[in-house]
Amino acid sequence: MKAAVFVESNRIALEEKPIPDIGPLDALIRITTTTICGTDVHILKGEYPVKKGLTIGHEPVGIIEKLGSAVEGYEEGQRVIAGAITPSGHSAACLCGYHSQDGAGTKHGFKPLGGWRFGNTIDGAQAEYLLVPDAMANLAPIPDGLSDEQVLMCPDIMSTGFAGAESGSVRIGDTVAVFAQGPIGLSATAGARLMGATTIIGVDAVPERMEIARTMGADHLVDFTKVDPVDEIMRLTDGRGVDVAIEALGRQETFEAALRVLRPGGTLSSLGVYSGDLTIPLDAFSAGLGDHKIVTTLCPGGKERMRRLMEVINADRLDTRPLVTHRFKLDKIEEAYDLFANQRDGVLKVAITP
Amino acid sequence: MKAAVFVESNRIALEEKPIPDIGPLDALIRITTTTICGTDVHILKGEYPVKKGLTIGHEPVGIIEKLGSAVEGYEEGQRVIAGAITPSGHSAACLCGYHSQDGAGTKHGFKPLGGWRFGNTIDGAQAEYLLVPDAMANLAPIPDGLSDEQVLMCPDIMSTGFAGAESGSVRIGDTVAVFAQGPIGLSATAGARLMGATTIIGVDAVPERMEIARTMGADHLVDFTKVDPVDEIMRLTDGRGVDVAIEALGRQETFEAALRVLRPGGTLSSLGVYSGDLTIPLDAFSAGLGDHKIVTTLCPGGKERMRRLMEVINADRLDTRPLVTHRFKLDKIEEAYDLFANQRDGVLKVAITP
Amino acid sequence: MKAAVFVESNRIALEEKPIPDIGPLDALIRITTTTICGTDVHILKGEYPVKKGLTIGHEPVGIIEKLGSAVEGYEEGQRVIAGAITPSGHSAACLCGYHSQDGAGTKHGFKPLGGWRFGNTIDGAQAEYLLVPDAMANLAPIPDGLSDEQVLMCPDIMSTGFAGAESGSVRIGDTVAVFAQGPIGLSATAGARLMGATTIIGVDAVPERMEIARTMGADHLVDFTKVDPVDEIMRLTDGRGVDVAIEALGRQETFEAALRVLRPGGTLSSLGVYSGDLTIPLDAFSAGLGDHKIVTTLCPGGKERMRRLMEVINADRLDTRPLVTHRFKLDKIEEAYDLFANQRDGVLKVAITP
Amino acid sequence: MKAAVFVESNRIALEEKPIPDIGPLDALIRITTTTICGTDVHILKGEYPVKKGLTIGHEPVGIIEKLGSAVEGYEEGQRVIAGAITPSGHSAACLCGYHSQDGAGTKHGFKPLGGWRFGNTIDGAQAEYLLVPDAMANLAPIPDGLSDEQVLMCPDIMSTGFAGAESGSVRIGDTVAVFAQGPIGLSATAGARLMGATTIIGVDAVPERMEIARTMGADHLVDFTKVDPVDEIMRLTDGRGVDVAIEALGRQETFEAALRVLRPGGTLSSLGVYSGDLTIPLDAFSAGLGDHKIVTTLCPGGKERMRRLMEVINADRLDTRPLVTHRFKLDKIEEAYDLFANQRDGVLKVAITP
Repeated sequence: MKAAVFVESNRIALEEKPIPDIGPLDALIRITTTTICGTDVHILKGEYPVKKGLTIGHEPVGIIEKLGSAVEGYEEGQRVIAGAITPSGHSAACLCGYHSQDGAGTKHGFKPLGGWRFGNTIDGAQAEYLLVPDAMANLAPIPDGLSDEQVLMCPDIMSTGFAGAESGSVRIGDTVAVFAQGPIGLSATAGARLMGATTIIGVDAVPERMEIARTMGADHLVDFTKVDPVDEIMRLTDGRGVDVAIEALGRQETFEAALRVLRPGGTLSSLGVYSGDLTIPLDAFSAGLGDHKIVTTLCPGGKERMRRLMEVINADRLDTRPLVTHRFKLDKIEEAYDLFANQRDGVLKVAITP
Repeated sequence: MKAAVFVESNRIALEEKPIPDIGPLDALIRITTTTICGTDVHILKGEYPVKKGLTIGHEPVGIIEKLGSAVEGYEEGQRVIAGAITPSGHSAACLCGYHSQDGAGTKHGFKPLGGWRFGNTIDGAQAEYLLVPDAMANLAPIPDGLSDEQVLMCPDIMSTGFAGAESGSVRIGDTVAVFAQGPIGLSATAGARLMGATTIIGVDAVPERMEIARTMGADHLVDFTKVDPVDEIMRLTDGRGVDVAIEALGRQETFEAALRVLRPGGTLSSLGVYSGDLTIPLDAFSAGLGDHKIVTTLCPGGKERMRRLMEVINADRLDTRPLVTHRFKLDKIEEAYDLFANQRDGVLKVAITP
Repeated sequence: MKAAVFVESNRIALEEKPIPDIGPLDALIRITTTTICGTDVHILKGEYPVKKGLTIGHEPVGIIEKLGSAVEGYEEGQRVIAGAITPSGHSAACLCGYHSQDGAGTKHGFKPLGGWRFGNTIDGAQAEYLLVPDAMANLAPIPDGLSDEQVLMCPDIMSTGFAGAESGSVRIGDTVAVFAQGPIGLSATAGARLMGATTIIGVDAVPERMEIARTMGADHLVDFTKVDPVDEIMRLTDGRGVDVAIEALGRQETFEAALRVLRPGGTLSSLGVYSGDLTIPLDAFSAGLGDHKIVTTLCPGGKERMRRLMEVINADRLDTRPLVTHRFKLDKIEEAYDLFANQRDGVLKVAITP
Repeated sequence: MKAAVFVESNRIALEEKPIPDIGPLDALIRITTTTICGTDVHILKGEYPVKKGLTIGHEPVGIIEKLGSAVEGYEEGQRVIAGAITPSGHSAACLCGYHSQDGAGTKHGFKPLGGWRFGNTIDGAQAEYLLVPDAMANLAPIPDGLSDEQVLMCPDIMSTGFAGAESGSVRIGDTVAVFAQGPIGLSATAGARLMGATTIIGVDAVPERMEIARTMGADHLVDFTKVDPVDEIMRLTDGRGVDVAIEALGRQETFEAALRVLRPGGTLSSLGVYSGDLTIPLDAFSAGLGDHKIVTTLCPGGKERMRRLMEVINADRLDTRPLVTHRFKLDKIEEAYDLFANQRDGVLKVAITP
């Protein structure tokens, strides 16, 4: 089968690999659509290390080709997705609700980012076939009538973005700022809207993203190249600040700005993947006495999460298709990486079809 | 092997059965100690139906005899316990934290009481050997230095009793009433104490139980045969009522009394197994406007829960050995049932050793 | 001034009363719009006792006429609302978040329904003027551009209805059933929608209400006169049941049906004002072992709650004006009571203007 | 009356001041015992600015001398305490549970640290008399039989320390590390113990403090001058790390160490008053993907909080008297400051009596 593998820094290439054998708890999925994530670009650039030869990608939509001998409750031929995070369900981390930090097989059952396996510690989804481990915890049937592209954002983008609002405990009547309106930030905007925030302020500078942000639920948009976003958010909130600030970029500037716009007692919900140490300015933190909370969340996974996200789409609460701006055949995935990594042509997400 | 099986109403008998074969995810445990639960007595009496020939019992302490081919992280010969509830980890219920309502194999993944398998839907622990399903989610190694009897209450009694306090969200400074001081109520008393309640009122009538209740953490004991417990609790709290009332018997009288002693906004945390409809009196419920909560909890299971409970014992926070009042060989389990079912000789819990 | 007072059972009459004097913490409001609540009808019928001569009504919209000497932060002439519940802010109940059970002045600081003062323990809003106690905790300025009728549902209906969804902890992707689609149930429907429920099932039988329910967010409507609502909800959810069931009527039938449609681990969020004891059927309650929760909530009050609800309207998340079906001058309030108490002419809520 | 006032940097002096006049909502307390806090030393050194002439101190124990005209529910002559934080109860912050960030009188009702008034924005407790604002929200009667010194830690030390455990959501069976075992850290240790933590690791270097830490509930003590505390905590937890780490010093080193010992998904509960920017190291933060939480808490106040804390003492759950190591008359408060500021003679807390 064809698979996009990490060859070396700055090189992900399409190669031929054998179709994987499956164990009793696994399922083999024939991929029908997948996509590229910002994290994959970090891998491409060598900023996030994976072993050479690994198939990349963690956002699968496909059809069950074969089920492990111990897998019950599914049928071959079913259309399914699996989350970017594929929890085992049986580690200590899973048993107390931290599925993304799944330490199955480790001494204590917790492992940082341990639930993230596809395209990280095992072969991923940018291929013709994908082996899904712990299939019974992870395969989520696609409701009839939903297309591949409609559910393509569920495995990672929607799950992560919504989690920004959920971990921030957004409540009816909240004011929420979302820093950066890339695919994750747009989903966070949508999540805040879905949970009842009444003033949602998106920060970005790309006109196309800001336009989509409106359709996702943003009430105000702040172009950080034109105004200081902290000043502007304080102005928009009449000096009150926000109840929840969602960081969806992974930079010191946005982390710091998110902290600065919080009202006392507010929550900074961080989704970004940072690449350096962070600084918490003393004043923005009220010297530690402002009842602030900083919470981080790695993309929730598991089949029940996927079911719920697909329900959001199925119930017409959100349409994530506008996030898919470009389409490529798997054969052309190297071109897709080139476009996506360089953020050319207003790209948000690409759909890859084998 | 010998096993205590349900023969028919009012008859549980020791019979010979084959040692079970194990599948890839199972473990076979050689039981070293087990016990009888009030639920087993309901089964004995035919009040809770199970199929004939089923081995009874859901509180195992033992040694790993054999591990399924896919089970990792354990060794044969290890001393372990498993909870009364043995979640699969991979059902929708498990993935969103309702392990006791595990609907693995069902269409939607939720099944009432579905996590309770031992001695209910599969063979149980009152036998020489026990097959533990989904072993990786359920086997919890016993810390060195703890005896079988020290951990014997963890699989059910402690887990259930503590859950009464946990689901009631007991906070530092709370006043808590615990209705009935049987093994579960005594554990609920201990749980409330461990969570910081500062006034704990136990209700019962058996002098031995009330005496143990003091060592478990009760500050006051109310003998319901001598005073009206509602009046007495209101007197003890100077008319304020309690923040949390824990029902640990399963009767209308205690359920109702628990509701009547709640302050506005208080929580009734119900652990009892009821045998008939319940009535909520209009006045005790402030006509639905008192911000009351009624929460029910089925014994939390899974290896992480078991680990934490054994830590409580290992750290000398609680000694549950006083709950074990009688000891029997497995050969004499019919005598043990007779004693326990009839609550003779001040019995609280019996230890059964094959 | 004119005021609608309780004269005796089945008689609320417009009478002349002196404009109230205000104390240092009070404010005097000139009422510009108010309404009649189902609770007022209970008072009218003598089912809920209040003292004779009391002015009825707890849903005020008005203009600040005069401020107490110690009241800061407001100006005379400001347009404001106050909640049906007017917490003091300083009782033990308030200090730990149970504002509706405010026991200011009582020994322990908790009093069932104690936060409900207007038209219950002090003169209410169906009058030309209203004295608002603890004004600094309770007066909420109306945002510019919102009309009286736009905010008229905030003091009680929206606050109560939304609380049904909030206390039920509705999450993104939840399935929610709302029993009865009167004004409270319609608001609960809207609240569930605002919090991210993806399948919302409303139960009622009045065609006009079911029609409005759709605009408030219901995905399905069940006419209980045509089908058994439990059967139908199980059918609509493909046998899964609901995550949250909201009771918005106050009857045994709806309470019981709400319990019967819950999935294991689900929450019954009760808003109804009951008039008799309630029965919890053993089977619907899984004998106490289904991890069910039953939560009750009395209308949240206080100025911050009011601010948030008005934000919902101001941000175009919800339009409650369709709930106002009839309009009367205060002079004609006896006619309004007649219409409303007898539920004639498809009435949902009436606007009363002095 | 005599009062310890801030004169200028490095000078707090006992001066003569008039006994304050009281308004309708105030109470005048005759101080019988008070103490000095680490924050007062920051004020002394000019590190935390207050206006010249302000009376310092925020930990009052005393007797009601006079009640404002609108204050109900108390009697002159009653023994009472008030919290270091004195919420109004009526601001937006208070109404949604952020009493310490009380913005009474501000536009939006939130103000960083706004609930801290004594010895910060109004005259404090190191004086013969103290005016308590919003008395009905703040005066807590001392239970009969408790001495001044027994309750002296409630207004600040216990409330803050316990909040470290509470905001960290310590659960039964948790492993908790507490960085620094000064008065706040010792109280955090006690709080973690009260909430059910089973492994509590205290970090400090002062032998006397480490000794008291054992009596407060620490299971292990780590001397950071002898071992690397991160290494040692990882060793003590067998590589697992802790569920909750409490920072009780206010330094980068302890903040960072607290983060480094957290298991994935763990919570850093920060109590320290920092004096510079903080750095979050990328690796200790799993690049933002470890599901970590950082929560800060300012000393909870209000009479209900005080009642609960005094209940802890009254119920013999904790004895904080060992924290009082020195005693001074108010006349000698300058000596007391000298001793306390320089941490001489093993001082933990001083009792000051007018």
